[in-house]
Amino acid sequence: MREPLLLTPGPLTTSLATKSAMLRDWGSWDSAFNELTAGICRDLLRIANAEASHVCVPLQGSGTFAVEAAVGTLVPRDGCLLVLVNGAYGRRMAQLTEVMGRAVQVLEFADDQPACPKALAAYLSVHPEVTHVGVIHCETSTGLLNPLQALAEVVAAEGRGLLVDSMSAFGALPVDARRLPFTALIASANKCLEGVPGMGFVLVERQALSAAQGNSHSLALDLYDQHAYMARTGQWRYTPPTHVLAALRSALDSYHAEGGQAARLARYRDNAEALLAGLRELGLETYLPPACQAPIIVTVHAPRLAGYGFGRLYQAARERGFILYPGKLTALETFRVGCIGAINRADIQQALAALGSALADMGWQAPKECAA
Amino acid sequence: MREPLLLTPGPLTTSLATKSAMLRDWGSWDSAFNELTAGICRDLLRIANAEASHVCVPLQGSGTFAVEAAVGTLVPRDGCLLVLVNGAYGRRMAQLTEVMGRAVQVLEFADDQPACPKALAAYLSVHPEVTHVGVIHCETSTGLLNPLQALAEVVAAEGRGLLVDSMSAFGALPVDARRLPFTALIASANKCLEGVPGMGFVLVERQALSAAQGNSHSLALDLYDQHAYMARTGQWRYTPPTHVLAALRSALDSYHAEGGQAARLARYRDNAEALLAGLRELGLETYLPPACQAPIIVTVHAPRLAGYGFGRLYQAARERGFILYPGKLTALETFRVGCIGAINRADIQQALAALGSALADMGWQAPKECAA
Repeated sequence: MREPLLLTPGPLTTSLATKSAMLRDWGSWDSAFNELTAGICRDLLRIANAEASHVCVPLQGSGTFAVEAAVGTLVPRDGCLLVLVNGAYGRRMAQLTEVMGRAVQVLEFADDQPACPKALAAYLSVHPEVTHVGVIHCETSTGLLNPLQALAEVVAAEGRGLLVDSMSAFGALPVDARRLPFTALIASANKCLEGVPGMGFVLVERQALSAAQGNSHSLALDLYDQHAYMARTGQWRYTPPTHVLAALRSALDSYHAEGGQAARLARYRDNAEALLAGLRELGLETYLPPACQAPIIVTVHAPRLAGYGFGRLYQAARERGFILYPGKLTALETFRVGCIGAINRADIQQALAALGSALADMGWQAPKECAA
Repeated sequence: MREPLLLTPGPLTTSLATKSAMLRDWGSWDSAFNELTAGICRDLLRIANAEASHVCVPLQGSGTFAVEAAVGTLVPRDGCLLVLVNGAYGRRMAQLTEVMGRAVQVLEFADDQPACPKALAAYLSVHPEVTHVGVIHCETSTGLLNPLQALAEVVAAEGRGLLVDSMSAFGALPVDARRLPFTALIASANKCLEGVPGMGFVLVERQALSAAQGNSHSLALDLYDQHAYMARTGQWRYTPPTHVLAALRSALDSYHAEGGQAARLARYRDNAEALLAGLRELGLETYLPPACQAPIIVTVHAPRLAGYGFGRLYQAARERGFILYPGKLTALETFRVGCIGAINRADIQQALAALGSALADMGWQAPKECAA
């Protein structure tokens, strides 16, 4: 049997070309490798039209490492971060800020409700101590899309800094630094860019980074130092994940060849539409209102089925060649299906057929009003 | 031309089998991947005979991330770390401790002198505030081997904790937790284990880790939390570098097939002997006294040659298919040649021939007394 297809928010299914790029060892001191890094950083800035205003600071580790690095480097020791929370990744940003000993506040919304720009404006108007606002672009825990442009405009109007966790959105959902004011945007190699996991990156406003020396609570996670060293030497400050970089270079080449952000988004939208339609046909209900459903990952209510457990469904789908993702909501039994990665509508339809077959084996019959 | 051979301390030359293991995407939630992680951790503990006394906590990022995580997790907020410094990596351990705001002291030795157990004992006897001692097993900046067993015995006799940065030594130089008392030993996938870069790991004494909750200055670098989550779920806390793990699994299989630590050390010793003999024949002088030269990486004095620059030598060697490594001593002009990776004596001899040819092109003639 061939390897299963990953319908997950990353690590996800990558192309063979991207994986094959890892069949070479690179010297981390070598100029060819420095050029690889520099080219990747240039490309990542360009995707956001941010070459003039921002620099790209790559960082070893998972996306959370990059989020912690951005907060630790850019929120001064006497600053205060307000995190807009409507899911697990917002809560994590607040948690890591607290662990590092910075002041943090939380403005909470329901998990199925986008963060509200008006509520943010009202909050900021009475909380002058807030220096920075943290927002999750697409809440991977549910698939919810937050209204980034409107939130960013409120933050800018109030004169605060904005940290955007765009982990599962960057590369597919549009980000244009010429009209979206942000201090930092954090993402990783292994989501919509379809690279492999092992590094994140932060697009940081030049001025904000210049002013950030000495803020960081951590040497390894200091983006100021990471960038200063790279600007001076062309090299990573500490051992880079060379093979992960090579894979990202290949993934970016495929990204450009496909047609860039617009084409990537169109394919994911197509995947998501096929998925949502197919889930409805199976009689399954999705969690989010359509208006805030990003075409990245879909949260599905567990079927009301005697003896159901996600483990059973997972195993049955896996035996059929597809890897599903568990839910991340504490109060509701759900599972998730990713729309991203090197997959298209045909893959989604095969996955739906497998899911239908797995559910049928578990005794599932679509409720009549849905199957009609 | 084939890809150049890396004569570096990592990222280094890995086998094709190890790289080929990355040609698959793994779901980070999948039980097959959890087993991969668990098997790697078991193997890493076994290499140090540490299954009974320690746990293995893998961590995303470079080796420095793992060193910072070990210090931040295991030295309490009101603790004090004494770092034995005789090179850049000792200095880095002290630096990262300072950045995180813990008390740190430094006991310095010359860069070509092993840390002295008697000096350590004398220091500890008058510094009761020191709770932990940090030592670099093999100082990658020069290739110097510190007397780990004797130092560890002093630390244990004084009742302090010991953090060992064994980054460039673990897997080749013997570590036996049944007779070497240590609180934590830090290493990475891409040195003597011959994996690819992207993760480090820490072997932590069980009791010390149990007592470490809440110490960490960082969420991402909290080894207590990382281990607790993995013990509970079998999964990594945040996105793991799945392909890097798969490569390490393959590299460990090769390690066992080769004959484990003794065989790995024998091959590296053979590489180092061939290298040292060849360098002498070329009339080049090595930096370290033979007694403290580890068979990992060799520091070589730059040839006294008009117009010499490391960049020129590097380029000339690279054109011949070999990647050298720059020196890391500030006061002396040197370069380094690694003995580790998926290379053997024949590779070293080819590298020496290339180095000789490169130097000859630059006008180098071996001094008579050396070439005799």
